[in-house]
This record gives sequence, C-alpha cells and structure tokens, in this order.
Amino acid sequence: MSHIRKRFNAPANKKLVQFTSSLPFDRRLYKHDIAGSIAHTKMLAKQGIISLKDANCMIEGLNDISSEIEKGQFIFRDELEDIHMAIEARLFDLLGDLAGKLHTARSRNDQIALDMRLFTKEAISQTLKCLSDLQQSLVVVAEKNKDVIMPGYTHLQPAQPVLIAHHLLAYFEMLQRDAERFSDVQKRTDIMPIGSGALAGVAYDIDREFLSHELGFRKISQNSMDAVSDRDFVIEYIAAASLCMMHLSRLAEEIIIWSSAEFNFIELDDSFVTGSSIMPQKKNPDAAELTRGKTGRVYGNLIAMLTTMKAQPLAYNRDLQEDKEALFDSVDTLLASLEIFAGMITTLKIIKENLDRSTGGDYILATDLADYLVSKGENFRNAHGITAKLINYAAKKGKALNQLNLGEYKRLSPLFNKEILAISKSSSIATKNIVGGTAPQQVDKAIKKAKEIILKSKKGGF
Amino acid sequence: MSHIRKRFNAPANKKLVQFTSSLPFDRRLYKHDIAGSIAHTKMLAKQGIISLKDANCMIEGLNDISSEIEKGQFIFRDELEDIHMAIEARLFDLLGDLAGKLHTARSRNDQIALDMRLFTKEAISQTLKCLSDLQQSLVVVAEKNKDVIMPGYTHLQPAQPVLIAHHLLAYFEMLQRDAERFSDVQKRTDIMPIGSGALAGVAYDIDREFLSHELGFRKISQNSMDAVSDRDFVIEYIAAASLCMMHLSRLAEEIIIWSSAEFNFIELDDSFVTGSSIMPQKKNPDAAELTRGKTGRVYGNLIAMLTTMKAQPLAYNRDLQEDKEALFDSVDTLLASLEIFAGMITTLKIIKENLDRSTGGDYILATDLADYLVSKGENFRNAHGITAKLINYAAKKGKALNQLNLGEYKRLSPLFNKEILAISKSSSIATKNIVGGTAPQQVDKAIKKAKEIILKSKKGGF
Amino acid sequence: MSHIRKRFNAPANKKLVQFTSSLPFDRRLYKHDIAGSIAHTKMLAKQGIISLKDANCMIEGLNDISSEIEKGQFIFRDELEDIHMAIEARLFDLLGDLAGKLHTARSRNDQIALDMRLFTKEAISQTLKCLSDLQQSLVVVAEKNKDVIMPGYTHLQPAQPVLIAHHLLAYFEMLQRDAERFSDVQKRTDIMPIGSGALAGVAYDIDREFLSHELGFRKISQNSMDAVSDRDFVIEYIAAASLCMMHLSRLAEEIIIWSSAEFNFIELDDSFVTGSSIMPQKKNPDAAELTRGKTGRVYGNLIAMLTTMKAQPLAYNRDLQEDKEALFDSVDTLLASLEIFAGMITTLKIIKENLDRSTGGDYILATDLADYLVSKGENFRNAHGITAKLINYAAKKGKALNQLNLGEYKRLSPLFNKEILAISKSSSIATKNIVGGTAPQQVDKAIKKAKEIILKSKKGGF
Amino acid sequence: MSHIRKRFNAPANKKLVQFTSSLPFDRRLYKHDIAGSIAHTKMLAKQGIISLKDANCMIEGLNDISSEIEKGQFIFRDELEDIHMAIEARLFDLLGDLAGKLHTARSRNDQIALDMRLFTKEAISQTLKCLSDLQQSLVVVAEKNKDVIMPGYTHLQPAQPVLIAHHLLAYFEMLQRDAERFSDVQKRTDIMPIGSGALAGVAYDIDREFLSHELGFRKISQNSMDAVSDRDFVIEYIAAASLCMMHLSRLAEEIIIWSSAEFNFIELDDSFVTGSSIMPQKKNPDAAELTRGKTGRVYGNLIAMLTTMKAQPLAYNRDLQEDKEALFDSVDTLLASLEIFAGMITTLKIIKENLDRSTGGDYILATDLADYLVSKGENFRNAHGITAKLINYAAKKGKALNQLNLGEYKRLSPLFNKEILAISKSSSIATKNIVGGTAPQQVDKAIKKAKEIILKSKKGGF
Repeated sequence: MSHIRKRFNAPANKKLVQFTSSLPFDRRLYKHDIAGSIAHTKMLAKQGIISLKDANCMIEGLNDISSEIEKGQFIFRDELEDIHMAIEARLFDLLGDLAGKLHTARSRNDQIALDMRLFTKEAISQTLKCLSDLQQSLVVVAEKNKDVIMPGYTHLQPAQPVLIAHHLLAYFEMLQRDAERFSDVQKRTDIMPIGSGALAGVAYDIDREFLSHELGFRKISQNSMDAVSDRDFVIEYIAAASLCMMHLSRLAEEIIIWSSAEFNFIELDDSFVTGSSIMPQKKNPDAAELTRGKTGRVYGNLIAMLTTMKAQPLAYNRDLQEDKEALFDSVDTLLASLEIFAGMITTLKIIKENLDRSTGGDYILATDLADYLVSKGENFRNAHGITAKLINYAAKKGKALNQLNLGEYKRLSPLFNKEILAISKSSSIATKNIVGGTAPQQVDKAIKKAKEIILKSKKGGF
Repeated sequence: MSHIRKRFNAPANKKLVQFTSSLPFDRRLYKHDIAGSIAHTKMLAKQGIISLKDANCMIEGLNDISSEIEKGQFIFRDELEDIHMAIEARLFDLLGDLAGKLHTARSRNDQIALDMRLFTKEAISQTLKCLSDLQQSLVVVAEKNKDVIMPGYTHLQPAQPVLIAHHLLAYFEMLQRDAERFSDVQKRTDIMPIGSGALAGVAYDIDREFLSHELGFRKISQNSMDAVSDRDFVIEYIAAASLCMMHLSRLAEEIIIWSSAEFNFIELDDSFVTGSSIMPQKKNPDAAELTRGKTGRVYGNLIAMLTTMKAQPLAYNRDLQEDKEALFDSVDTLLASLEIFAGMITTLKIIKENLDRSTGGDYILATDLADYLVSKGENFRNAHGITAKLINYAAKKGKALNQLNLGEYKRLSPLFNKEILAISKSSSIATKNIVGGTAPQQVDKAIKKAKEIILKSKKGGF
Repeated sequence: MSHIRKRFNAPANKKLVQFTSSLPFDRRLYKHDIAGSIAHTKMLAKQGIISLKDANCMIEGLNDISSEIEKGQFIFRDELEDIHMAIEARLFDLLGDLAGKLHTARSRNDQIALDMRLFTKEAISQTLKCLSDLQQSLVVVAEKNKDVIMPGYTHLQPAQPVLIAHHLLAYFEMLQRDAERFSDVQKRTDIMPIGSGALAGVAYDIDREFLSHELGFRKISQNSMDAVSDRDFVIEYIAAASLCMMHLSRLAEEIIIWSSAEFNFIELDDSFVTGSSIMPQKKNPDAAELTRGKTGRVYGNLIAMLTTMKAQPLAYNRDLQEDKEALFDSVDTLLASLEIFAGMITTLKIIKENLDRSTGGDYILATDLADYLVSKGENFRNAHGITAKLINYAAKKGKALNQLNLGEYKRLSPLFNKEILAISKSSSIATKNIVGGTAPQQVDKAIKKAKEIILKSKKGGF
Repeated sequence: MSHIRKRFNAPANKKLVQFTSSLPFDRRLYKHDIAGSIAHTKMLAKQGIISLKDANCMIEGLNDISSEIEKGQFIFRDELEDIHMAIEARLFDLLGDLAGKLHTARSRNDQIALDMRLFTKEAISQTLKCLSDLQQSLVVVAEKNKDVIMPGYTHLQPAQPVLIAHHLLAYFEMLQRDAERFSDVQKRTDIMPIGSGALAGVAYDIDREFLSHELGFRKISQNSMDAVSDRDFVIEYIAAASLCMMHLSRLAEEIIIWSSAEFNFIELDDSFVTGSSIMPQKKNPDAAELTRGKTGRVYGNLIAMLTTMKAQPLAYNRDLQEDKEALFDSVDTLLASLEIFAGMITTLKIIKENLDRSTGGDYILATDLADYLVSKGENFRNAHGITAKLINYAAKKGKALNQLNLGEYKRLSPLFNKEILAISKSSSIATKNIVGGTAPQQVDKAIKKAKEIILKSKKGGF
C-alpha cells in the first residue's frame, strides 16, 4: 500500500507484492469484513469517538461497496494486499478523507481475527446442518430396510449376522459425535477479538461488549496478545473435519466394496454414478471414491496449519496469513462431501437377496452355538472348544449347520437338545437384545431416538 | 494362542507371532484390564450368569495377578498375543477351568475398547492437573514481575510496549483453551462399551448400566458396531495434545530467543539448563528445545492414527491395534513436557534491566503519538501519516522522541501540545485500559481471574 | 554429566535428566559409536595426535566395552545422558585418565551425525535385501500361476480381463522404484561428517579421508555447520519408507478383499493367518491388516521429523535428538512388514476357479468389441457407441455376449463378422501384445526381466 | 459427458457433476494434453492406424484449440468433466466425426498419467533453475562478505566464531542436496505411460518408443496396471519440495532473528520488506515469515497425497484425481519461495559491526584455549576442565580473556605460554583449516567449488 511504503527508498519488489498479497483468497471474507466494519462504526459513534453523521456516511459507503462486490462490479487490485485495504481504498474513492476514520481503534491484526471467526462460525452452522441431513438419509434407509439381515464383518470376514439398519446406524453415531465436536469448536470460536489492536489493546474508550452483542458473539477475548495470534479455532475446525472425513471414508469404502460385482449388496442410483464410455454395465461409485481420496486433503490441511503455527513467537507474524486457504478448502471439501453423501445414500438401493445369500453358509452362527452351550451351564471357553469341533466336523462332512441332526450335535456335547435345530440368522439377531445390540426391538428404539435427535437438531436445538 | 490355532494345519509363523503381538506395549493396560474384568465378574454374578462363589474366586485370582504384575513377578510371554490373553492364561494357571468363565458375554473387541477408554480417562485427568500447574507457574511469574515493561513484538520487531505479565498471561489463555478441549474429549471418552461383544451385541442378560456405574463411566455406548470400531476418542486426545504442544512450542521458542546473548531477557535456573563441557558461560535451554522438537512427534502420532483409521470398513479390523503406541507416546510426551515447563517457568529469572533497555529507543511509542492526534480530533489515517513524518524527522536528526521539543512536534501538527512531552512507555501501557489490554489495572484483574480459575480447577471443579 | 555440570549452582532437576536423556533409545547405536571411536583413535595415532600405545589401549578398552554390551553385562545409567557419554564413562573406569583422549578433535555433534549415518547405511542395505526378497515372492507366485486370468478392476468394478501374473508384477514395479529410491538415499547418507567438530570444524590436523575410508564411506562432508545440523538423510529414508508402506498398503488391501468370502480369490496359508476362538472357518488376514494400519505410523514418523526440523536456526539444536526414535521405528516397521509379506505371498494359494467365475459374465469384453470395430475401420467413438448399444441389448435379453448370434451383432453394425463369435477372455488378453501389456508373451518377458533384476540385486549389483 | 451417460436412466445429479469435475484445475494441463494428443496422432498415422490426411486435420484442429486457449477464447464447461473431454468436445465442433479418432488406442487413464508426467518434468526443470539461482545469491553474498566474522551458534547460544560466508554456504549445501533429489525424482518421472490403456494395455499395434522419443521421454513404462495407478512421482516431487521448504524455513528463521532489533545482524532491502502504516523504523521481514509459514502447506500436500494413495486397490480409482491440486500448489509455492529468497538474499546488507560486537565477549574462544592445551600435550578432558576453571575465574573478575595476563593463565596450567595472549576470533577461525572447516582458505575453496557447481548447473549439466 502506497501510504505505508512511501517512506521506503524502493518500491516493493513486484514478486514480493504477488507473494504476500492475500487478496486473491481473502476477498471471500468481504461480507464478514464489512459486517465487522459497520458494527465498529456504529460503536465508534455510540462512544462519541466519531460523529453520528460521519458514521452514517461511512456505513452507507460500506453498504455500497458490499453491493458492488455482490454485483461483481468491484475491482480487486492485488497491490492492495488484502481485503481490508481493498475496502478501505474504495471507501476513500467514495467518501474522500472521511474514510480515514474507519480504522480508528482497530488494527488489521484484530480485524482479520474477527473476520476469520465470523467465517468459521457460519461454516460450523452449515456443517451442523449438513451433518443432520446425512444422518437423516441414513435413518431413512435404515428404516426402509429394517428387516434386512446382512453378514456383520470383522477383518472383512463374515462374523455374525446383523441388521443392515444396525450397521447404518453405526454411522449415525459417528456423525453425532462429529456434530458434538463442531458444537464444541463453536464455543471457542464464538469470541469477539476487536479491541486487541495490533497486540497491546487499544487506547480508545471503545465498548467491546456492545460490539460483541452487535455481531452476535457469545463473549469477548481476555488477552489482546493471545487474541491476535490465536488460530486454535481454525485448527479445531479442521481437526473435527478430519475426523468427519475419516468417517465418510469408512462409509465410502463400504459403498465401494458393496458395489463390487462380487459383493453386489447395493446399487447406487444412476444419478450418483459415472460410467465408462464403453461398458454400459459399469457403474462407478466415483463420488465415494473421490470422497475417500479427499480425506487426504483435509488431513493435509490439518498438518499444514499445525506446522504453520509451530514455534511462532508472540504476537502477530505474517505466517498467520496461511490460515485462510487451509480453512476455506476444508470447509468446502467437507460440506460438498456431506451433501453428496446425503444424496447418494438416500437414493441407493439395497439388494436384499444378495445380502441374504452372502452370509455364506450358516457357520456365521458359530457364536450362537457357543452361547447356547453357556446358557446350558457350559464354561465359556469349553463352549468355544466344542463349537469349533462341531464346525470342523460339519465342514469335513460338507454340511451346513442346519443339515446336522441332533445326534451329530449331541456327540459333541450332551447339553445340546432339539432347540438347537431352530437356530437361524433371525434367532441369532433376536438374542442380541441389549442396549446397542442388533436385535430388532433395539434397532427400532435406536431409530426412534435418532429421529428425535435429528428433529431437535433441525430446530437448531442441538 | 494355542486354543485358537489348534484347528489350523500349521503353527503360526514365528515372525507373524512377533509381528502381531501387542503384549510388548499393551501390558501397560493391565490395571485397566483387570479392573474391567473384576467389574465384569461382579456383574455376571449379580445377574446370575455365574455363581457368587465362582465370582469371588475369579476376583481373588485377578487381584493376585495384579499383585504379581506390580511386584514384577509376572512373566509376559509374547506368544500370548495381548494383555487379555496373558491375564486369562495366568488365571487358568491359578484357577484351572474356572478361568474359562472370565470371558463370558465379552469379546476382546469390546474389552480392548474398554481398556483404552479407562486409560484415556485417566490420562485426561492427569493432563488437566499438569495444565493447571503450568498455568499457576505462569501466574506466579507474571505477578512477581507485574511492573516489568517489555517490547511487544509483531514480526519479531518491537511494536508497542507491554507488561511482561500481559505477555505471559497470553499463554495462560492458550492453556485454558487446552483444558477446555481436554474436558470436551473427556465427554466422548467417558462411555462404557462392554456389551457390544465382537460386533453385534451379546446374547446374555447383562446389566450394562451396573457395569458403567461400577467403572465410573458417564454413560453407555448406543451401537455395538460403532463401539468396537470407534477410536475417535484416541484421535481427539492426540489432536488436543497437538494443539497444546503447539502452544508449548511457541513458549519454547520465546524462551530460546529470550535466553540468547543478544536478547538476554531471562536467565533459566541452573537446574533447568544443560551446559557445554568447556564453556562455563553457556547455558543451553535444552528442555525448551527438546519440547519444541517433540511437537513434531505428537503431530506425527495424530497423522498416524488418522491415516490408520482412514477407509476401514466396519467393524473391528486388526489395523486398530495401532492405536496404542500412538496414544501412549502422546500422553507421555505431553505430560512430561508440561511438567518440565512448570518447573522451568517457576524458576526462571526475568532480567528487568535488559527488557527495559531493549525496547530499543522510544520509536516504539509511534502508535501513541497517532492515538494522541486522533484524541485531539485528527483523522486516523492522517494521524498515522503525521506520526510517520515525525519519526522520519527524528531518525534523520538522530534523536529519540523524548529529545524532541514542542516546536519540532508542532511543525508537523498544531494539535500537539505540551502533554506530548510526557509520553512514555508507562503512559503508553496505561492507555490500553480495556478488557484484554495491557494496562496495569487490566492485568491485575486478569491475574486475579486466573487465580480463581486455577483454584477452581484444583478443586476438580473445572 | 557431572564434569559438565559442576560449575552450575544447582544439580540438574531430576525430571530434566529423565526428559533429556537419550540413552534409553540411542544405546541401540553402541556398535556404530564404538566403530566410529575405534576408527577415530586409529586416525589420531596415525596423525601423531596421540601415541600408538595409547591408541592400542583405547581400542582394546573399546572392544571390551563392546563385548560387555553384547553380553548384556553393561549397565546403562540414564544420568549419563547418551551413548557417547555412557561409553566414555566406562572407558574411564577401565583406563583411567587415558580415556580423556577419546574425544580429541571430535564433538558429540559430529559424533552423533556419524553414528546416525552408519546406522542408516546399514538399514538401507537391509531394506534393499528385503525388497528383493519380496519381489522374488511375487515373481514366484506370478510364474506359478501364469495362465490364470482374473478380472482387471478400475473403481473396483471389473473392467478388462488380465493375467493375475500381470497384476502381481505391477507390485514388482513399485518395489523396484522403492529400491531405486533407497539407493538414491544411500548416496546422500554415505557421507562422513567427523571433522566438523561442534560446528566450525576442528583445530587439529586430522585425516578425514582416512577416517572416511576406514569406516567405508563414499565421501566426506563439505561444510561443518551443515554437517552437524543435517538430518535430510533421516527424512529421506522415512519418505522412501512411506512410499514403500503405501505400496504394501495397496497390496494389503487387495489381499484383504481377495480373502473375503465374497471374492474368495486367494487362500492365505494357515501359518500366516490368525483365527477366531470360535469360528474355525474364519481365517483373518491379520498381517495384511496390521501392515495396512502401520502405514499410518510411518507417515507419522515422516511428519514428526519434517516438523521437528522446521525453522531451526543453525547449527546444532537439542531438537535434533528427536531424530532417533522416528528413524528406528520406521526401519523396524518397514523391515518387519516386508519380511511378513514375503512369507505371506510365497505361501498363498490362488483359487483359479473363483477368479475365472468372478469375471462376472463376458461383458468385461466390451472394449474388445469396440477395438474389433475400429480394426474394421470404424471411428473410435462410434465403435464405443455401437458396443454400448449391443451390451444394453444383451443385458435386456439376459444373454451373455457368447450367447448372441451373428445376426444380432450385425443388426448393430455390418462390420461385425463371424470372427466376433470367437472373442473370449483369452483372446482379449492376447491382443494386449505390447510392452507393458497383459498378453502372455509380454508377461513372460516381464517375468524373465524381473528375475534378472532380482539376480543382479542379490549379487549386490543393484 | 452425454455420450457416456446416455444409457443411464437419470442424468447426473448436478452436485455430482460439480463434485467430480476436475476441469477447474486440470485445465492447467492443456498444453501437455495437446502435446500428447499431437504426438499420439502422428504415431497413429505412422503406424497406419489412421490416415495421414486425417492426422493432419486432427493436428491442425488441436493446434487451433491450443491457440484459442492461449488467447483466452476457449470456453471451459464444467459439465465436460476434465481437460481431455473439453478438448475432444471442441475438436468435434471443429472437425465433426473425425474427432472420434483422437482417442484410438488410448484411455483417459494413461492419458492423464502422461499429462501429469509432462507437467512434473517441466516443474522439475524450473525448480532446478530456481535452486541454482538461489545458490548463486548465497555465493554472491558470501563472497562479498568473506572477511566478516560472526558468532556461530548452537542452541542459539554463541559457541565458536565462524565466517558468515561459511554459515551461508551451509545453505548452499542443503540446496545442492535438494537439486540432487529433484534430479533423482526426474529419473522416475521421465517414463512414458501411453499404451497402458485403461489398465491392460491396448490392442493396437502402436509404437510406444516412437511416442516416447517424440515427447522427449527417457523410457517407457513396463507394466500397464502399474502405469495407470502410479503417482509415486507426484509424491516424490512433493517430498523433495518439503525438504527444500524445510531448508528455506531454517534460513527464513535466521533472517527473521537476524533482522530483530536485538540481533540487528542484517538489513533487508526496502524492496523486500513491508512496513507498518505508522512506524517508519519498522521493516517487517514478511517474505521470510510467509515462506516459513508456507512450509506447512507443502508438508500438508505431502500428507494429503500419501493418505490419498493409501490402501487403494489396483488399478485406476477416482481417488487419483486428487493428485493435481496438491502437486500444482506445491510447485507454485516452492518456485515462488525460491524466487523471493533469491531476490531477498541478493539485496540484503550485512551489518559487519554488529556481527563483530555481538560475539559477546571473547569467552566464545574457550574451545580454542582447550585445543591449545591439547596441542601442548594435555589430555582432552583435562584441557576442558582447566579451561572451564579459567573462564570461571575471568567471569568472577569481570574480565575478558584478552584482559588476563600470562600469570593468571599459568596459575591454572603451566602449559600456557605467551602465545596464548595472541588468541583471537581471527586466530580461532584460522585453526579450523580442514575440509569443511571455517578457516578462510577453506571457505575460499568452498566458494570456488560452489561457483563451478552453479556454472555446470546453468549449462544444464547437473
């Protein structure tokens, strides 16, 4: 900026101007910057630091600039370095010298802290909305397929039968933790930093609580040096986003595996797949793959910001300028991924018959046999041993469990009686009748509870 | 484990046994594992799943094993794979077949989730204690040096004078956010997972709420598949630790710079430095350097866990075994760093005269001149322009501001009058009399408030 | 160390001693440290800096210490801070004052740089050996299953048939790049730093080239300040290891997916799986899962070291001590993973009939139809369009391609003639007869070439 | 793309189109994509797969499209998904059906691999050029200030005097390793992938060697499945860039510390600093700070790509699309940082008198006293002990070393004689006369060698 540089003996090197300008990306903060300036101007007038008349002119000018930007008429000139200076310069065009009062009792250091906090608060609200939408998609699909049994996997090996609704609700839980985390981040973002000045506080009788209230903040910052150098809230957002992307990557992986010809558990809707130019049967789960890939991007942003903040002495250093792109990219990536998933999940079709088939014989009921023996008084480890022998026997005979007769059972343990012949995937599921278990009545309760949580969230009552 | 492998046609490859065994590091969880087993046994008896007599024998056996481990008499055999099997195997030695009842209605999948949660809860308590101790050290030093003025830096260039107490309290604020974050992590850690079984829930009439209460948990998990595959709490702890280490790295950087011969603002106590074998004047701030270095280690653990969890299908996969070392190392590193810092800060000496001297001429008061002009009615940007000219003039003359006479001031603006001659670092600081500012009465209030927070925290009343 | 600290007014704080001691992990460098000291002693004698007699005593003493450590008779005392001081202290026990000559013309700063370089060189050799072994396993399995056709996947959807040998050889290529990378790292590791002293070089007439030759280095370092503060080689090793673990994680993922009941393409040998205590049919690919998980750990070590090195001023800072554990853990993890994979791959069984079956109908030949049309003169994009229509038609009729008659083909393009009825997975593969393609003769050549590379590598002639 | 989607029953969801389109960023590859298409077209004609006349038309069309893009007349439509389809679609506009031959014997999978390799090769050339320029800046400043002595630091504490030229040349060495690394990356980037098709190779008689030669590649890929899924070269570039940024962050840190009022070792040129709007004396080293901050960004890109590639099964998956932005951003960041540093270093002024002064008394010569004693026959450790006592004595007396008389020296060791009175920073430096040491003749040689390396590099002869 000319007024800052004029005392130097040389103009800024052109590459330096380009290297240090944040205007190409911080222009995105114009709304927040102008909102902050308007509130600040009101406050200056209220405190008698500037006149009411001046304040009204300035606010009008700021509103005009806002309109210009919205209409695409504003010219962003890189040499103006950042969004604050770009707006101030335009205000000088519109109002002349009066514009020089805009930055009274304020520094770019506390101003950018304000803008970033306003942006992040908004981003968190949008994130909570998107999380809730995706939760709803999961609940809808879970409820629609309440009776569908699938193999529950450990090590990607069939382990025990579960309801697919139960499986999907596991993701509801993950997203619920995500929502709680973002709400926690909100608490530490929702703090008004203006009044911190460059680093020491300001020498004007300003009303910080008024500003805080005017801009909708919960409270004001308590230490000026901390306030201008704190970017914890940016890192916290990206950390919460990383966890959320990790959850989406798990769901993405399952969608990809389930869409394979070999599993063939689900069919994605035509509107959510891409194709090959030649193989009509091919439906590629690109959105899931891309989201899985984008997980890396958000992790990268997290490391970028943590590294940038490492070992910086107080207070403001120019390194802090790096906070913007990492945050913007994380917000954009997360919101887009959540939206895509909500659409993709809502429209996917579950292929019940393949889920049934694929439970791969009834050896998946082995645990149930052991539990049966324990219920008859057998020691747990012994019950496991007997079951193992039984399944080895069946495998050698090439029989499924439901092809064994009672005699064959009894040869391995006298505790078996004819009830054992009725054992099935359904009966197995029914026995897991405990809070958090996969029994139908438990899953029903979980769906009901999930709906209540979504409803509460939609009402903003997180 | 032999009883698991005996049906295979080949013994496990020796390298595989070594590769997959977690006993070398998860033995550290023995206390939590045994506590979980004792509570589980009590619950099984209460529910009539095992007899009270059996339960008492088993609990006695478990207590004996605990003693053996504490006394260093327990032999950990790697081929037993993990701490659960090591303890069960020993219980078989002690009790014979009865030991086979220990794992009734429990799987290693929910058991390890329990152990990790108990461990993390304990780690969070210790972390909160250490954070509070370091906060106290900062407050003690701040209060002891309440009157000491230092240059406040931006870009590591002197910008405005501040109280060193104000500077130190910026770190109090950071640590306070850290404490809040760890408390938030606690909420999502404090959840009892037993009853989830391998993945589907268990088929026994167990009392999950009893278990939860017995083990001191806040609530029980709501979805079994989520509960056995969720390691969010581990990542959250490490993410919070990363932010905290980042804060320590900033303080470490300042301690290192302030200890340099050129700054010479502080002197670390002899008990907290290391020396060179030959240069007696050399006092190396090794603890600060090492902590700055260890920041990378905790960031690394964060990326390790996030990467490990990426794209894992439900439910339990062996990848999850990797959670332990990353968590243990993060806890150990953070606790040790916080303790070292508390000691180092408490005992450091602030060299008042150097802080005074180094404020490097009184050009650091430039902002105050501009604020003065604004208070006399000058437009903010004009006031900046006039001040810049004045300081250019003084620099050309080789004079400090306090060597200028009123005439020289007035040549640049008629608004200057003799009050301006009284301007000083003290008067500058006094004007920042706003919440969060560096004025002495504000810093006094901040110290008072900080002490209350520490007191509350010591009472466990975070 | 007492002789360093005695001038301080206070003993080191006990926590500081523990916090700063590297002996618990750098003891692993004893061999390298002693080898360096013996070479150094020889050189000092050769240059007349110490007498030959003294040198011989010192070398004998060092060899004795080496034996003590190997036999487990050496007592590592944490208060001795690091392996250099631990060995020196023991040498004083054995030789008295003479031991005081050991560190002539050497500092711990260049000494630890030497030890780390010796360790890394050795680790690279072992890594190259293990890479070659795993390559061999892949080639053996590829050759043994040369005729087996499998579906080649994109987006985990069947795309075109390929030979499984071709698929496996893709990993041969990845590992070959890994080997090249490690060899490149070797070039920059293989540099002898002694003579750099603490940071400025030493004031003795030492013979650096002699030392370099004695210790088997390729060349000597060119700038003392760089030499004591450079850890690029550590980061390079871990970066190369990260890429290699990434490759293993891809192969691990395939092994896990192929081992699923739904794919069932391979069967791991009993000696390389773990089981469930109750489900005898369950063979968990734990080694693959754990390796996939451990990928995160090595990535974490990479970020740890990059972060630790960030923004350190020259020359030696205590932060550098953090280099050891990150390197050691990366080496251990990579070597163990490569070894486990070599065993697991060599012993796995490919289930030919399932690979055949699962190519999921012959729609996987769609590209071949289009290529056929192009060969008959059709424009490429049109050929794709016609093929798409044909497959849509077949799908609607519920027919496989080989169930269509020539008339049905001709209805969509007159260019089809009876040759088209002979199209098959084998014929498809045969057409990819281009370097790098999946045609049998190309794969044969690739296997032959791979064997030559392995042979050359085994001869150390990488 | 319509021709791909027409068989689906639903148009692509709009959010999906936006989510999956890479055109907003891969348009940057247009030059490489067109160059690849032109070479491919030539080859198809040469092999008789298309006619020469068709080829000429197509090449003309491609050249026209290139011009349109360069002139800003080309309209990029997001729904065209990627740069390949955008160019093909435009070719259909220009040539009609003939355009349908462009993708003969090629898939987007090998095409994007080609584009990325061409881009990376170019980026490496530019990087090598920028590295060499910055090396030159360092050598220029080193040579211009050949006689300037400064304190050499360890732990940011003055340790031994060194020439500033020696200090700067340490960075020359780091950058030289960077250059070697990028050259190594070039080897593995310089591989031509076309012919790999979608994953299995192509069914046409194409001439891969011709293509390779035409496009300036060193060799052709050896396995089609590897070739379409390999992004090692992208990760390798970013890993090398991470190391290079780490080096710049170290230099940045020193520039920031040296620019502080307390050190005041250097003055950055006015064209390379930014100022405060009010404090004319303030020259903020923003470029250095920002580069230090941007280190995090490149580390983040590294983790992003490593994470994205983790555990992807073969061959092409949509996750791979994430490779572009991480690479582009890393290249842009590194090149800009190197350029800025070259300018900033070339123009900075070294303030000789402050470097002299700040060596902080002559206790920095302690090591020289010990070395002196050793040269007179004293045992190394004893020599250290005596020196420590001597400096303690001097400190207690408040004397510099050069204020001690011979008697005071002799009291501590009879080996001291009057030569010791001549010891100075210059004499200390002179004694480090060993390859890599700081003695003037060694530094002269190092400068000469550095110039030769730069000259060779400028000639492209790395």
